[in-house]
Amino acid sequence: MNQHVASGGLAEAIAALVSRFGDRALTGLSVRDLHAHDESHHPASRPDIVVFPSSTEEVAEIATIASRYRVPIVPFGAGSGLEGGAIPVAGGISLDTSRLDRILDIRPDDMIVRVEAGVRRQELNRQLRDTGLFFPVDPGADASIGGMVSTGASGTNAVRFGVMRENVLGLTVVTADGRIVRTGSLARKSSSGYDLTRLFVGSEGTLGIVTEVTLRLHPIPDAVSAIAGFQTLAGAVSAVIDIKRAGLSIGRVELLDEALVAVINRHETLDLAPLPTLFFEFHGNPESIAALSDIIAAIVADHGGTPLRWAKNADETRRIWETRRVALGWAKAERPGAHSWPTDVCVPLSNLADAVLETHADIRASQIPAYIVGHVGDGNFHCVFMSDPDDAQEQAEVHRLADRIVLRALAVGGTATGEHGVGLGKRVFQEAEHGAEAVAMMRTLKIALDPLNILNPGKILPDLADPLHSN
Amino acid sequence: MNQHVASGGLAEAIAALVSRFGDRALTGLSVRDLHAHDESHHPASRPDIVVFPSSTEEVAEIATIASRYRVPIVPFGAGSGLEGGAIPVAGGISLDTSRLDRILDIRPDDMIVRVEAGVRRQELNRQLRDTGLFFPVDPGADASIGGMVSTGASGTNAVRFGVMRENVLGLTVVTADGRIVRTGSLARKSSSGYDLTRLFVGSEGTLGIVTEVTLRLHPIPDAVSAIAGFQTLAGAVSAVIDIKRAGLSIGRVELLDEALVAVINRHETLDLAPLPTLFFEFHGNPESIAALSDIIAAIVADHGGTPLRWAKNADETRRIWETRRVALGWAKAERPGAHSWPTDVCVPLSNLADAVLETHADIRASQIPAYIVGHVGDGNFHCVFMSDPDDAQEQAEVHRLADRIVLRALAVGGTATGEHGVGLGKRVFQEAEHGAEAVAMMRTLKIALDPLNILNPGKILPDLADPLHSN
Repeated sequence: MNQHVASGGLAEAIAALVSRFGDRALTGLSVRDLHAHDESHHPASRPDIVVFPSSTEEVAEIATIASRYRVPIVPFGAGSGLEGGAIPVAGGISLDTSRLDRILDIRPDDMIVRVEAGVRRQELNRQLRDTGLFFPVDPGADASIGGMVSTGASGTNAVRFGVMRENVLGLTVVTADGRIVRTGSLARKSSSGYDLTRLFVGSEGTLGIVTEVTLRLHPIPDAVSAIAGFQTLAGAVSAVIDIKRAGLSIGRVELLDEALVAVINRHETLDLAPLPTLFFEFHGNPESIAALSDIIAAIVADHGGTPLRWAKNADETRRIWETRRVALGWAKAERPGAHSWPTDVCVPLSNLADAVLETHADIRASQIPAYIVGHVGDGNFHCVFMSDPDDAQEQAEVHRLADRIVLRALAVGGTATGEHGVGLGKRVFQEAEHGAEAVAMMRTLKIALDPLNILNPGKILPDLADPLHSN
Repeated sequence: MNQHVASGGLAEAIAALVSRFGDRALTGLSVRDLHAHDESHHPASRPDIVVFPSSTEEVAEIATIASRYRVPIVPFGAGSGLEGGAIPVAGGISLDTSRLDRILDIRPDDMIVRVEAGVRRQELNRQLRDTGLFFPVDPGADASIGGMVSTGASGTNAVRFGVMRENVLGLTVVTADGRIVRTGSLARKSSSGYDLTRLFVGSEGTLGIVTEVTLRLHPIPDAVSAIAGFQTLAGAVSAVIDIKRAGLSIGRVELLDEALVAVINRHETLDLAPLPTLFFEFHGNPESIAALSDIIAAIVADHGGTPLRWAKNADETRRIWETRRVALGWAKAERPGAHSWPTDVCVPLSNLADAVLETHADIRASQIPAYIVGHVGDGNFHCVFMSDPDDAQEQAEVHRLADRIVLRALAVGGTATGEHGVGLGKRVFQEAEHGAEAVAMMRTLKIALDPLNILNPGKILPDLADPLHSN
């Protein structure tokens, strides 16, 4: 087995951590249970100890101990991951970043901020509010910045402001053997040396432990939102593609399928037409939004859309996006006891309509409640199944349907995950997506930076001999 | 010496290449001289042989031969580099990409294109014109796409469309031992696996040889340009920062110092006010440009700027940017026999005014003609010295001044190179910029991917024992 962890001295490591960190190194069952899972459907697996460092130097000490005793070390942020990235499948140390919660340096004139990895994005934006700037990447959950770096998060704003990769200027990273590496700079661009920053973005704690992050900020835009329903899902998707092709700058554009619109209408008073629907956000001053919105209304109409329904004020705009944020929670609540299983693929824009329609046909043919939402401006969509976790047959069916969605995306040159990360669920697709040579190169990098395989073992890279779904 | 090349069998490698590639493997002095230099001030150094592969598979064959005989292999694109990245300082094989010139797949609906590495950016944009899309990254020179990937190029458009890093979706790369790796996908975003694509962007052929590139395209914008002069350099720079902070979307904004404006006025008929000057480009429909331009005119006036002088039509807009492109050539021609030595730093926005002003004071105190131009929206500026290559004292003085510019940038958290790359000239600053641990990690990656050190040896990474400028 290629990802073997030589678990030499677990007891010694625990003793060393407890001795060093006292009541910030906990082995009780309840705290270990809290660190045994994230928000995904993947099975829980307890760490042997949970440690709460409060500085980069303390993280380095933990790595030194983990390295000496060859014990796994798994970073844990907000626990909001959707692919099991923070689940300690091989036990060991759960490194909880919640005490790495300092906002270190707000530099409004440079439009950048430096934070510790455990800072949550909503708290960051609260602290930034007086500057007129914000950090735009919004995966929905109130994730930690370190977790967002590690999964390569994005979300509704990415079509306008880019994904994590484009908004991280630099990192502080602790290596497997406890050294402290600083990557990037405070400059907005650089051609200097290998791009270590981007190597760590999306690496899910398997190459190093992110402890500090320098982020780009953006001016808070004047935003106005609007809603349009469409006769068909295909019409909604192709309207978005035409808007992209026309070079029109949109803040957000989110697809919700008819089923999710029905959920919203049962829980809320937005009173939407019972149709596949796009939520739009436009940025700019009134003149430029007016100019933009006329063109967009014409494109929407061309594709069978209803007239744009505009938010009349900031409160209505907030309500539209709050509805988008919580709607899947309402959908889940409609099936008591259900777990949510979100898929997450991204395809070339020209394949998006087919990919969404084929997914829609799949879920219609199944009995399992499921909803399609999409950051369609990027070609990224989710099909979220609300399934009974105790019904093995139903779980197998969701697995089968989720695999079909991924395989269809890969068949057209897309990716197995647009923004949730590989974690446990997408490891089996790595070779199909990237090819054997690229995966071999990833493995070479992993071995070079973590020769003992103690950094979040069992994530991202497929086990060489594993058949599909043996993970 | 850490970057030792075990040049085992140069004669055998040459024989094998000539036998395999015939008249596409040349050892004549004239072709070797053509591949001994780029456009930088760095001393020429001849390769032992120049090979012209016409496919990825042929590049893999060359790498296999180079690896077997432990001979350096140095990719050569358009030869327009400014830091010596393509100079074969250890001899060996110059791998000329000019026959890798196919545009493989234009996908207008996906807004992407796949090209071979030797395609030049101007030819690419000619081929794209009918689609209404273009590839925006514009370093000035008609560089090859592979070269632009390798240096992490950017240029005037980056403030609006991003740098290479953000516009490369995937690569085909040949490894040191001749394997073919495909990175990335056709999706516009992904969280799947380690970001091999970004690892190769900016790696200057030291980790692998880029043979194919998938690029993001953008709709050709409606563009209008304008010019404003400023009483002071500081005023021009702070106007740009205020525009950024206000969240106003600008297509380009370029700074030219008073000396370069004087050159333009001697060579051309733009008839500029003899002041530090900004060239602007705005994108959008007439209504949104009008709305934007009023705000910008107010900011410009606040900082001692003249009223914006608008291009009256597309021809005038083209002329403004063509002037920007060629002005430094005119400046060079004003000093017969001079070589141009462009510096290239990027600093946090709040440090930009000081960095430019201190540089300006330096060049005023020197006798060497020099000009400051800047992609100031990104904090990136160049001071270009026009110096006598045969005057050792003058060369030493340029070296000293260029070092000061870099060291000042590093002192405020900036970078030694915003877009030209490390090549030969910025190796000595790698440790000062990134720290010893980050450079050690870069070296670990280099050794993992090129254990024989045959890929463009002597670039990017500093020699461990080298004093400043021993390169």
